[in-house]
Amino acid sequence: MNAEERLRHLGWILPPAPAAVAAYQPWVRTGSLVFTSGQLPWRNDCMAFVGRLGAELTVEQGYEAARLCALNALAQLKAATGDLERIRRLVRVEGFVHCAPGFRGHPQVLNGASDLFNAVLLDRGAHARLAVGISDMPLDAAIQILVTAEVTD
Amino acid sequence: MNAEERLRHLGWILPPAPAAVAAYQPWVRTGSLVFTSGQLPWRNDCMAFVGRLGAELTVEQGYEAARLCALNALAQLKAATGDLERIRRLVRVEGFVHCAPGFRGHPQVLNGASDLFNAVLLDRGAHARLAVGISDMPLDAAIQILVTAEVTD
Amino acid sequence: MNAEERLRHLGWILPPAPAAVAAYQPWVRTGSLVFTSGQLPWRNDCMAFVGRLGAELTVEQGYEAARLCALNALAQLKAATGDLERIRRLVRVEGFVHCAPGFRGHPQVLNGASDLFNAVLLDRGAHARLAVGISDMPLDAAIQILVTAEVTD
Repeated sequence: MNAEERLRHLGWILPPAPAAVAAYQPWVRTGSLVFTSGQLPWRNDCMAFVGRLGAELTVEQGYEAARLCALNALAQLKAATGDLERIRRLVRVEGFVHCAPGFRGHPQVLNGASDLFNAVLLDRGAHARLAVGISDMPLDAAIQILVTAEVTD
Repeated sequence: MNAEERLRHLGWILPPAPAAVAAYQPWVRTGSLVFTSGQLPWRNDCMAFVGRLGAELTVEQGYEAARLCALNALAQLKAATGDLERIRRLVRVEGFVHCAPGFRGHPQVLNGASDLFNAVLLDRGAHARLAVGISDMPLDAAIQILVTAEVTD
Repeated sequence: MNAEERLRHLGWILPPAPAAVAAYQPWVRTGSLVFTSGQLPWRNDCMAFVGRLGAELTVEQGYEAARLCALNALAQLKAATGDLERIRRLVRVEGFVHCAPGFRGHPQVLNGASDLFNAVLLDRGAHARLAVGISDMPLDAAIQILVTAEVTD
């Protein structure tokens, strides 16, 4: 199975790559690196998870939101390369968790993204990661992730 | 017109590149990439926009602050390359918005930076972007942006 | 003296590279760049500095915490390269400071990391830097830094 088949086998469908919501591009390639814009938990043009972890949202919902961000990031990487097989490897995932004061579950929440990348891309999905909590997010989104990937032609 | 002429035509002047405020460099080049330090809304050695969006500052002021950060980033890229024409393309702009709880205008505010980059660098100004809200900023600055650019010799 | 000897001469010991706390890697290399995961102030498997600058922690403690993050980052770069002499130069240090509302000492605190990098790596330690304040951090850690470095074989 290739990465897109594994994705379907796991019950997920690669969504259309979300458009940028302002005056920027959803991804830029320079040399063999693709840098994505911040990916939000969009599903069918709706922001599927709004609010703060540790207040309006549970860790389980945060995990799902992070997975949805990761699906959207894969869609951007497919748009950038034409084929998920041209991802040589992920490099870094920077995760921003919209949360209430005192929330401590950032790593568990962001595993929603990491677990999807690892399951779909296998060894090529291994990535360095940042996890921080922030007090305000565009569109009240629960999670935002930035992805840097190494790609091939 | 080249980029610096377009900048003047739009009524802006490239400022001197702000010095670092602590034990770091304002930019570093590695291979064909330049990574800037966080750029703040300095104007003539003064922090021109202090305070939080959604409290002390309006979205219009935030837009101006983001544009000023972008002007300072262009000054750093000129210092790094000697000439704005040697910017092959912007890659990623990471925008941190100092804001009060509940603020939602991050994309509009950061368009102050994106619009300037697009107007001055045209196609070479297209960039991926991050937008997050943070609760505290060095020197109480309103906005901070990090820029990654691809450059040529 | 090489970098590791300078480190010992300064009274520091390179710790074992901390393991990742979730489903990611502590560092990833792509081409000549190494991107680390967020480094926290671990010491002997304990989180040595917890809480917020401007509340539970002083600027001096924050400086120490940032230095400890930098020691852990050096340990990751040694794991990635086998030898600190293979670090051609640091590129960017992104610093996230866990702080209470109104805290303004981010640059002084993060100098704990920058000063160590400069003292140990000399000219190769020069780096671009980001400094922001955030309201919540995984494991209640005081500081988190991300490091990007250029390396050689």
